[in-house]
Amino acid sequence: MIAEILSTGDEVMLGDLVDTNSAYLCDRLKQLGIVVSRITARGDDVEAVSETILHISRRAGICLVTGGLGPTSDDITAQACAKAAEQTLVLHPGAYESMKTYFARRGFALTPENEKQALLPAKADVLKNTHGTAPGFCFQLNQCLFFCMPGVPSEMKQMMETQVVPHITKVFGLTPNLHIRRLTIFGLPESRVGALLKDFNDLFADIRLGFRASFPTIEVKLVFDSTGFCPENQKIFDSSIQVDSTIQGEKDLDAEKTDPRAYFEKAGHWVVRQLGKKVVSLTGLALEAEVGRLLKQRGQTLAVAESCTGGLISHLITEVPGSSDYFLLSAVTYANAAKIKVLGIASETLETHGAVHEKTAREMAQGARQVSGADWAVSTTGIAGPGGGPTEKKVGTVCIGLAGPGVADARQYHFTFDDRSRNKKIFAAMALEVLRRQLAGEN
Amino acid sequence: MIAEILSTGDEVMLGDLVDTNSAYLCDRLKQLGIVVSRITARGDDVEAVSETILHISRRAGICLVTGGLGPTSDDITAQACAKAAEQTLVLHPGAYESMKTYFARRGFALTPENEKQALLPAKADVLKNTHGTAPGFCFQLNQCLFFCMPGVPSEMKQMMETQVVPHITKVFGLTPNLHIRRLTIFGLPESRVGALLKDFNDLFADIRLGFRASFPTIEVKLVFDSTGFCPENQKIFDSSIQVDSTIQGEKDLDAEKTDPRAYFEKAGHWVVRQLGKKVVSLTGLALEAEVGRLLKQRGQTLAVAESCTGGLISHLITEVPGSSDYFLLSAVTYANAAKIKVLGIASETLETHGAVHEKTAREMAQGARQVSGADWAVSTTGIAGPGGGPTEKKVGTVCIGLAGPGVADARQYHFTFDDRSRNKKIFAAMALEVLRRQLAGEN
Repeated sequence: MIAEILSTGDEVMLGDLVDTNSAYLCDRLKQLGIVVSRITARGDDVEAVSETILHISRRAGICLVTGGLGPTSDDITAQACAKAAEQTLVLHPGAYESMKTYFARRGFALTPENEKQALLPAKADVLKNTHGTAPGFCFQLNQCLFFCMPGVPSEMKQMMETQVVPHITKVFGLTPNLHIRRLTIFGLPESRVGALLKDFNDLFADIRLGFRASFPTIEVKLVFDSTGFCPENQKIFDSSIQVDSTIQGEKDLDAEKTDPRAYFEKAGHWVVRQLGKKVVSLTGLALEAEVGRLLKQRGQTLAVAESCTGGLISHLITEVPGSSDYFLLSAVTYANAAKIKVLGIASETLETHGAVHEKTAREMAQGARQVSGADWAVSTTGIAGPGGGPTEKKVGTVCIGLAGPGVADARQYHFTFDDRSRNKKIFAAMALEVLRRQLAGEN
Repeated sequence: MIAEILSTGDEVMLGDLVDTNSAYLCDRLKQLGIVVSRITARGDDVEAVSETILHISRRAGICLVTGGLGPTSDDITAQACAKAAEQTLVLHPGAYESMKTYFARRGFALTPENEKQALLPAKADVLKNTHGTAPGFCFQLNQCLFFCMPGVPSEMKQMMETQVVPHITKVFGLTPNLHIRRLTIFGLPESRVGALLKDFNDLFADIRLGFRASFPTIEVKLVFDSTGFCPENQKIFDSSIQVDSTIQGEKDLDAEKTDPRAYFEKAGHWVVRQLGKKVVSLTGLALEAEVGRLLKQRGQTLAVAESCTGGLISHLITEVPGSSDYFLLSAVTYANAAKIKVLGIASETLETHGAVHEKTAREMAQGARQVSGADWAVSTTGIAGPGGGPTEKKVGTVCIGLAGPGVADARQYHFTFDDRSRNKKIFAAMALEVLRRQLAGEN
C-alpha cells in the first residue's frame, strides 16, 4: 500500500518552521510496517492544496494531512478537501460539541471564529481533539483514505495515537513483523562504512540497510519486515559465504533456514564483523550512553577534566537519565589558573609544556580523579579554533588523558576540521571512546 | 517564477531524520524574494526520484535538491537526475579534482567508492564542496534549473551560500533590497509572542514578520524588501498610531516618510516595545553570546557552578569563539561530595537544606567565584528528571545563584516540562538570563 504525507502551511514554505510532524508520522507508520512513499508540503492556498489532494487520491491508499485546521482565514484544509472531493462544507455537530466541551472545561465560550472549525466536508468523519480546539476529520477520495490532523505537534500526536493509528490498523488489518537493529559506529567516515558494507544488499536482499551520520558518529540501521519471508531464496545460505558461527546468539545453525529471526541475526553479525572495533554500541546507544552502561555494569564512577571541550563531555554524559549514579564531577578548567587551583596541575608542567600537552592532560585526569574520588577520569586539552591556542599547536590538536585503577595515560590526536563546534564534538567523542575501550577491555 | 524543493533520503521517509534543510532553503530563497511553492520528499529510489524530477521540470523554474550525493549505494541522486534528463553519467574531472584536494588536505587517498561521487549527468555543471567530499551539480531540464546539494546541513549551507545563491541571483536578475532584523526573545511562549505582535501586519504591511522557536528562545525576524517601497501608503504614518519617538536611533521623524530604512527602524522599535524586557538581544544573538558581549564590554570574567545543567551552560558559553577571554571555569559538581570539595559548600548547608535549595545555589556561585577569581559566577542546582531528586522537590525545580561585586543572591524557579533534556536547556537559559539582566543593569 502506498502511503503519503501532506504538510500544509505558509510558515513551512517560508522556512519559518521546521516540519517535525512529518518525521514523527513517518516513524509512526514505519512501526505499523508502512514506509511513506512521498512527503509533500504546500502553502495555505486552496487551489494548491486541493490539486495536491486530488493527485494523491489517485496514487495512494493512505494520506496523513497536517495543518490548516485553525480558526483563522489562512486555515483552508477543510475547504481544499471539500473542493477536491466535490463536497460542500457543513457544520458537523460532533465537531462543534467537542469544541464546546474543550472550551467549557477552560471556562471560555465559543467564538464565531471557532465555529468555522466545525465546518467540514459533508461526508467526512470527525476526529476528536482532546488537546486543542481544532477537530480533525477523515474522508475517502478515489482509492485513498485521508486523515486531516492539526499542525500543532502535541495535538497532532494525540489524535494520531488515539484515533488515526487504531483506524488504520483496523481498516488495513496490519500485523507488521518488523525487526529493527541499530549499531553505532565511531572512527570511520561514512564513505568507508559504505565501502565495508557494500556487499550487504547482495547477501541480505530482504533487509534494508540505512546510514545516518550524526557527527561524529554514524548509525547503521537494519530494517526487516519478515511478513511473507521466504529464506530458502536467500544467498546467505549459499555455502560460499562464510559467516562466523561462533558469535554469541547463533545457537541453531539450521533454524535460520526457516526462522526469519535467525536470518536477521545473521545479517547483524555480518555487519558487526565487517566494521570490527569501530562498532561502539551493538544496540545503537550513543557513546556517552554506552560508557554509562559499562560504568553501571562495573559499579564504578567517573570524573572529567575538560579544557577545549568546554563542558560538552559533561553535558553529553548528563543527557543520559540515571547518570547521577556514576557521574561525580566535571572540572571545566578553561583558564590555566583554574587547572592549577582545581585540579592541582603543577605550574611547572604548564610553564614547561604548555596547556596542550600529554603531560598536562595526564595530570588533569589524575587531578579530576583525585579531587572527586572517582574510579575513572578522562581529560581533554586542545585547540578547537577558530583562532590558534597559546602554543604553537594547530587547530584540531587535542590531548586526551585517562586515569583509573593502575592507569595514568595520555595521547595526542589531530583532527582536520576547521570548525570550533565540530572540533569540540569530535574531541568529546574521542575522549568518551578512549574511556569506552578501556572499560570494554578493548585496549 | 515557481520554485520547488526536493529532499531525498530513506532516513527522511522512515522518520529517522527531521528535514531541517528545506526550512533553511525556503528561508534563504525568501530572502531573494522567492516563495517556495512545493516541498517534496522521496526515498533513495531511482525511479521515484527521477519521476519527481521530471514532474518538477515541467512546472518549476528552479528546484533545489538535497541529499543522495554520498559514496554509498543508497546515494542515487546523480543517477536519478541522469535518468530523468536522459543523460549518461560521466566522470567530471572538476568534481574529481575537488574531492582529491579535500582528501589530500586530510592526508587520505581517494577510494573507489568516492570516485563514484564524481560520476554526474553528462551536461551537469559541478558545484564545489569545500566542507565535505560530495560535489554538487546543477543542470537544466525542460524549463527548470536544478541545483543538487549534499544532505549534510553544513555542506549544503556552504554550497548554497557560496555557489547556488550567486548563480540564482545572476541568472534570474534578482536585486533585492533586503532589510533583515533579528531579535532574540526569552521568557514567553510562542503563542504569547504572536498575540503581542498580532497588529504588526496591519501597521507594517510591507514587512514580513517571522517566528522561529529554538527552545527555549524564540527568534523574531523582520524581513523587508524595499524595492519599489511607497511609504506614503503605510498606516504607520497615521497619527492615531503611537510610536515612541524617544527610542534611540530614531533621529529624524520626517525621514521615515520617504526613507525605507526609517520605516524599517520604526517597525523594529514597535516590536521591541511590545515585547519589553523579554527581548534578550537586539541583534538576534543567542543568550550565551549576548552574555559574552556584555562581559567583554565590561572587561570582566565569569565562572559557573553547575549541578542539574550538567555542563550545558559551560558548553553553550564555550561555543562562542573568543570565550576564553572571559570564561575561566565551570565546576560541574554532580555529586554532593564534589560540591563540598571543589566549591567549598558547607556540609551543614547540604544536610539542613539539601542540594536543591537557594542557600546551596548561593554558596555554589560564591564558591565558583572564589576558587576561580572570576568577577561573576552563576550556579544551578535542581531536578531535571525524569526521576525525582534526593529531596521532595518536583521535577522542573531549579535554584539559580548569582555572585559578583556586592552581589550574592539565589532564587528558586519552577518549569513544567517533564523532559530531562528540555529542563536542562531551560535551566541553563534561565541562569544565563539572570546573569544577562545583572550585566545589562536590568535588575
